[in-house]
Amino acid sequence: MKEIEVKSRAFTYRILIEAGCLERCGEMIRKVSDSKRAVMISDDNVWEKYGSIAETSLKKMSFAVDSIRIKPGEGSKTIDCFTKVCEELGNLKVLKDDLIIALGGGVVGDLAGFVAAVYMRGLNYIQIPTTLLAQVDSSVGGKTAIDLPQGKNLIGAFHQPLLVITDPELLSTLNKKQLKQGMAEIIKYGAIKDKELFKKLEQYGSIEGALLHMEEIIYRCCDIKRSFVEQDERDNGERRKLNFGHSFGHAIEKIGNYTLHSHGEAVAMGMNIAAGIGMKLGITDAETGKRLTQILNAYELPTQVQSNYKDIVRHMAIDKKNDEKGLKLVLLKNIGQSLLYTIAEQELENILEDVLDDILELIV
Amino acid sequence: MKEIEVKSRAFTYRILIEAGCLERCGEMIRKVSDSKRAVMISDDNVWEKYGSIAETSLKKMSFAVDSIRIKPGEGSKTIDCFTKVCEELGNLKVLKDDLIIALGGGVVGDLAGFVAAVYMRGLNYIQIPTTLLAQVDSSVGGKTAIDLPQGKNLIGAFHQPLLVITDPELLSTLNKKQLKQGMAEIIKYGAIKDKELFKKLEQYGSIEGALLHMEEIIYRCCDIKRSFVEQDERDNGERRKLNFGHSFGHAIEKIGNYTLHSHGEAVAMGMNIAAGIGMKLGITDAETGKRLTQILNAYELPTQVQSNYKDIVRHMAIDKKNDEKGLKLVLLKNIGQSLLYTIAEQELENILEDVLDDILELIV
Repeated sequence: MKEIEVKSRAFTYRILIEAGCLERCGEMIRKVSDSKRAVMISDDNVWEKYGSIAETSLKKMSFAVDSIRIKPGEGSKTIDCFTKVCEELGNLKVLKDDLIIALGGGVVGDLAGFVAAVYMRGLNYIQIPTTLLAQVDSSVGGKTAIDLPQGKNLIGAFHQPLLVITDPELLSTLNKKQLKQGMAEIIKYGAIKDKELFKKLEQYGSIEGALLHMEEIIYRCCDIKRSFVEQDERDNGERRKLNFGHSFGHAIEKIGNYTLHSHGEAVAMGMNIAAGIGMKLGITDAETGKRLTQILNAYELPTQVQSNYKDIVRHMAIDKKNDEKGLKLVLLKNIGQSLLYTIAEQELENILEDVLDDILELIV
Repeated sequence: MKEIEVKSRAFTYRILIEAGCLERCGEMIRKVSDSKRAVMISDDNVWEKYGSIAETSLKKMSFAVDSIRIKPGEGSKTIDCFTKVCEELGNLKVLKDDLIIALGGGVVGDLAGFVAAVYMRGLNYIQIPTTLLAQVDSSVGGKTAIDLPQGKNLIGAFHQPLLVITDPELLSTLNKKQLKQGMAEIIKYGAIKDKELFKKLEQYGSIEGALLHMEEIIYRCCDIKRSFVEQDERDNGERRKLNFGHSFGHAIEKIGNYTLHSHGEAVAMGMNIAAGIGMKLGITDAETGKRLTQILNAYELPTQVQSNYKDIVRHMAIDKKNDEKGLKLVLLKNIGQSLLYTIAEQELENILEDVLDDILELIV
C-alpha cells in the first residue's frame, strides 16, 4: 500500500492507495474515527457497483450505516441537491459526532465535502474517490464546492477529509470518457511540476498504456497536489498553479452549458490555450507548446477550440482567482515549470483572438 | 470608545463600542481592510434607517459600495434567501478581495456571515449589529448559520469577522419587543458567568432602567462572550455554556413554528425550564431559581411554558450539541456559575413533565 501524509492547518491526514482496498475501507476508517454512525453519500451508478462492498466492510467494524444517493452528473452540484442532502441528514437525525463518507467521483466528493463542511457547522468526512479524476485531484486538498448559475464552484468551503481511500481497481469499470477526464489532470501535473512524469506519459503514449502504471501515476499526482496544498492550503498563491488550463476550461464548460464538453475536455482545451498565450507572450517556449499539444492528442483529448474569444474572457471575469489588477493565468515556462501571470481583461482579449486563430490553423 | 480584542484561530479582531460611531464606520473599516469594494447586506427596515449613513461614511474612505437587501425577520434565514444573495453577488461580479458588511440584527448577521463564509470559499466580512440581541450576542464569535425545516441554524460555518462595530445609539429606534430579545441574552450572561452583572440587572429593575447603562452592559456581555469563544472557538466544550436556556428555547420556537414566540421569549422560558430541571436534579439551589424567575418577570420576559413536554424533548433531539450519550444541557449551580450536564432522553422527559407542571402551578 502506498501512503501519503498531508499536513493541513487543522490536522494531518493520509491518502491510502492500494488496488482492491475498498473492501477493507471499514478497517481503515475505524483507525481514524470513533464515530458510531456513518452516512455514505454516493450517486446511483456508483452505489449500485460499490455501495454494498463499502457498507459490508463498515458494518464489520461496527459502524451503523445510512446512505444518501444523488443523481449522477454535474447537475447534482446544485443548491437544490445540496439542500435535499442536508434535509435528509436532518431527517435521519445525524449529529455532530457522526461521520460522512463520500463514495463517488468529483461531483459526489465536492458536494458531500461541502455538506460535511456546513451541516451543523462541520462534521468529519472521508473521501473514497471512484473516478480517475477524483483519485488524482478532487479528493485531495479539502476544496469542496457546489455550482451557481453564475459560476462553477462559486459556493464552497475548505474542509479537509479525515482520510482519503483510493482503490485503483475501481477504475476498471470506468468508460473511456471518464478515464480521459482524469488523464487531462494527470497531464496537467506533469506540465506544471514534474517533467519526469510528463516524459513517462509521453512514453506510455495512450490511455491504455498509462492504465498499466496507474497506481504509480496516482501516487505521483497526489504527492504533487500534496506539496501545493501544504504550501498554500487556502489557495492564495502557489496552489493556484494547479489551475493550469482551468480558468479557460471553466469558461469553455460554461459556454457549452456544461453539456457540450466534459470538465476534462475543457481543461485540455484550456491548457492548449494557455500554452498558446504563453508562447505569444514569449514566456512558453515553442517546443513546450508542441509537446503539450501532442500529448493531449495522444491521450485523445481535444485541443481545438470553437468558442468565441470574447465569450471566453467574459466568463473568466467571474473567476475566484481574479482581483482588481486583472485576470490570473497560469502559464508554462517549459515542461515541469509553471508561473502565475496577471493580465488585463482587454489585453487577454487581444491575444486570445490570435491564439484561437492559430490553434484552428494548426489543426486545419 | 470601548474596545475588546478577540483572539481567534485565524486572526485577532476587535469589537468597537461607542454611541454614535456608525457615522464613522468607514474610517474604522478602512483601518482593517484594503478592499476597493464593499457589499452591504441589510434588511429593508434597517437599510431605510441607517443605510445611507453607513454608505456615506464608506464612500468617504473610497470604498465602492453596493448593497443587497433582504426581507426583515427570521423568514430570511433560509436556503432560498441565501441562494438569492449569493446569486446577486455573482451578478455583481463580487470577487475574493471584496468585503462583505452585515448591517442589521441577528438574522442579517447570521445570513451575511454565512454568505461571507462560503461565497468563493470565504470573503472577509464586518459585523455592524443594529439590535440589542446582535450587539450582545450574535455579532461576536464567528458563528454563522441559516435554518432548515429540520432545525434552526442547522447549516452554517465558523467564520470570524474582521471587525465588529457596535453603536448603542442604534438601539433608540428599537421597540420593546426587540429590546426584550436582547435582555434575555444579557440576563443569561449574568446567570451563567457574572453574578455582579446579574445583581446590577436586579437593581436596574426594568428595561428602561437598564437602557441608561447600556454601553457598559454591552461591553460586559461582549467580554464574557469573548472569554468563552477564546477558550473554545469551535464550540466543543466550555462555549456551550452560552447555550443556557437555548436547547429548550429552540424547541419552543420550533413548536410555535417560529411565529408564536420570539427567540428571546423562547430563551427566557428555556432558562426558567433549565433552572427548574437543575433544582429537581439537586444541582441548582432554590434561591437561584427564584431569582432567575423574578428577574425574567421584571424584564417582562415570559416564564410560563404552554408546550407539551414530549414535543419539547422530541425537538431537542436534533440539536447540534447532542451525541449518542444523550442530550446536553446547561444548568446553573448558582447565579454566575454554570455547568454542562448530559441526560438521557427518557430521563429528561420524566423530569420535564414535573418541571412544566411546577412552573404552571407557580404562575397560577
